Amino acid sequence: MTGLAGKRSADDETHLLNIMNANANCRELLILDARPAVNAKLNKAKGGGYEENYTNASLTFLNIHNIHVVRDALKRLTSCLIPRVDEKNYLKALDESKWLNHIQSILEGAVKAVFNVDTEKQSVLIHCSDGWDRTAQLTSLAMIQLDPFYRTIEGFAILIEKEWCSFGHKFGERIGHGEDGYNDGERSPVFVQFCDCLWQILRQFPSAFEFTQELLICMLDELYSCRYGTFLFNSEKIRLMDNKCDETTISFWSYVLEHRKKFNNPMYRPKKKVLYVNPSFCALQVWTDYYARSNPHVISPSHEEIQQPGGVDFLNEKKQLLDEIMALDETVHSMATGSAPSTSSSS
Amino acid sequence: MTGLAGKRSADDETHLLNIMNANANCRELLILDARPAVNAKLNKAKGGGYEENYTNASLTFLNIHNIHVVRDALKRLTSCLIPRVDEKNYLKALDESKWLNHIQSILEGAVKAVFNVDTEKQSVLIHCSDGWDRTAQLTSLAMIQLDPFYRTIEGFAILIEKEWCSFGHKFGERIGHGEDGYNDGERSPVFVQFCDCLWQILRQFPSAFEFTQELLICMLDELYSCRYGTFLFNSEKIRLMDNKCDETTISFWSYVLEHRKKFNNPMYRPKKKVLYVNPSFCALQVWTDYYARSNPHVISPSHEEIQQPGGVDFLNEKKQLLDEIMALDETVHSMATGSAPSTSSSS
Repeated sequence: MTGLAGKRSADDETHLLNIMNANANCRELLILDARPAVNAKLNKAKGGGYEENYTNASLTFLNIHNIHVVRDALKRLTSCLIPRVDEKNYLKALDESKWLNHIQSILEGAVKAVFNVDTEKQSVLIHCSDGWDRTAQLTSLAMIQLDPFYRTIEGFAILIEKEWCSFGHKFGERIGHGEDGYNDGERSPVFVQFCDCLWQILRQFPSAFEFTQELLICMLDELYSCRYGTFLFNSEKIRLMDNKCDETTISFWSYVLEHRKKFNNPMYRPKKKVLYVNPSFCALQVWTDYYARSNPHVISPSHEEIQQPGGVDFLNEKKQLLDEIMALDETVHSMATGSAPSTSSSS
Repeated sequence: MTGLAGKRSADDETHLLNIMNANANCRELLILDARPAVNAKLNKAKGGGYEENYTNASLTFLNIHNIHVVRDALKRLTSCLIPRVDEKNYLKALDESKWLNHIQSILEGAVKAVFNVDTEKQSVLIHCSDGWDRTAQLTSLAMIQLDPFYRTIEGFAILIEKEWCSFGHKFGERIGHGEDGYNDGERSPVFVQFCDCLWQILRQFPSAFEFTQELLICMLDELYSCRYGTFLFNSEKIRLMDNKCDETTISFWSYVLEHRKKFNNPMYRPKKKVLYVNPSFCALQVWTDYYARSNPHVISPSHEEIQQPGGVDFLNEKKQLLDEIMALDETVHSMATGSAPSTSSSS
């Protein structure tokens, strides 16, 4: 259904029917439209539309606000934290920033998708006005809760490449790479907001991810630094075909994979189960370790403690112990078979 | 200085001078009076007083509110969380409860004591109107930050016995053990508030404590259950001399030491350093894992995950690996000396 005239597209309707039929369990295709219903209706005036009266499809609006609202909310949030915290009015100012409300509506949308795929075994179609901002947020947050592979470092790299880089998130425009117009209305911290949502999941499931928040923080730093080609330009075509970033720049993921130790989560225990983040207001927190790290009065000591190399390094300790066991095993074996002199490798 | 007449006590002044002189580094004895200054002044009308014009002593009021204010604040806090969370007004209601403001003033007071003892090498005297509520909160929170021994399970037991049980915190009256008068003005969750403050420290220093929040939650449950004699009655005299609780009841700490595994912190790395909790408003959090555990919509999945036996059990894993190494070492040794048949204990 597009425009005020309500034109229908038979091809589109058939396409959606085919998507539904691809899943034998699917009784009805759930369409999640990320926008507030009122915005979607207003967009009809500009020739836009949404799926009204499609056969075997139900449409839900997720009430997630657009890039302009997100930009303003983050400005208000950071002014609660930097350069100093107004201790007397902190909660009031945090409330008024509405930042956590936006985080909540995205997480609620992602949980809705997870529930429909995991519990109801239905297919879900997610879209928005364009498909490269809120849509990418929702699909990647749903996928990382559904599939444990995306919670490994390799899997996460693939998820970001797939849902953000290849799908056409306009990194260049949203961050304003190489642009002076800091008031440009196209700038918006959509990817930052996605990382915040993911941080909420990491925090609620401390042993489900191979990586810690350090990977998210490092990724956001490199997003703004432009050291790697991964997050340059506005689409994969411009990045790879027009600008040959794959030949002329290094990938952010090469750096990550070479410095895995820095990002390893010592609490990681791979689990197959699907995660359901709790989007309730009192389960959400402010990501001060990222937004307020320049304010020494805000940063919590636990952040430093985790960051400190060797501070909480269980993974390494375990590896050393396992190495020692292997060496001892070999010694025992060679002594039993008389193939080598007897030596004790541990002391 | 007591009463409106401002009577002085030479003995008290000498006593404080002696305390100061016991520390060769001490230039001036810091007296921390837990009360708001205005309350201390009002108490003069009832014959109370505080240390005005003592030689070589400086007096600071910590502005911590009394048992009645604490009781009302906790009622307001829990009504934000139970039976359901009003998602739209959560931050506003949390702000209005003032609970975190009270937590903040106690932590600020404790940090002041820690700073003066650790950094300034001065002596500190802490008191309040009576000495068994806010005083015990401050001294025990300062000691646990200053001395790593109190961060072990044994040390923590000694700290609670010393600063709360022996010092005369009126557990019976504050909790209302065996009393019907639930409106009794002497009831107040002072010990709960202390545990909340301690939880903030645990959370900010995830590897500094041998125990997890499970020990705090279990302690609070047993405080209300009266299963153990540890927290019965209003003083050590009534508990041990009048009621022989040491002969007729089991100590809570016997239970804890027999079930250490339940409370062990897998992240624990003993450290000698002094802790400084960050009392900034945005470093504080609501202890939903305790206050809201009866609300399934609030409880965060991470709580379950930590509680799950074997969920994140690094300590045990490490112990098993070390046992295996010891067994292999013995095998190698006995094979080398020819004192036993060669067997491999690992596979």
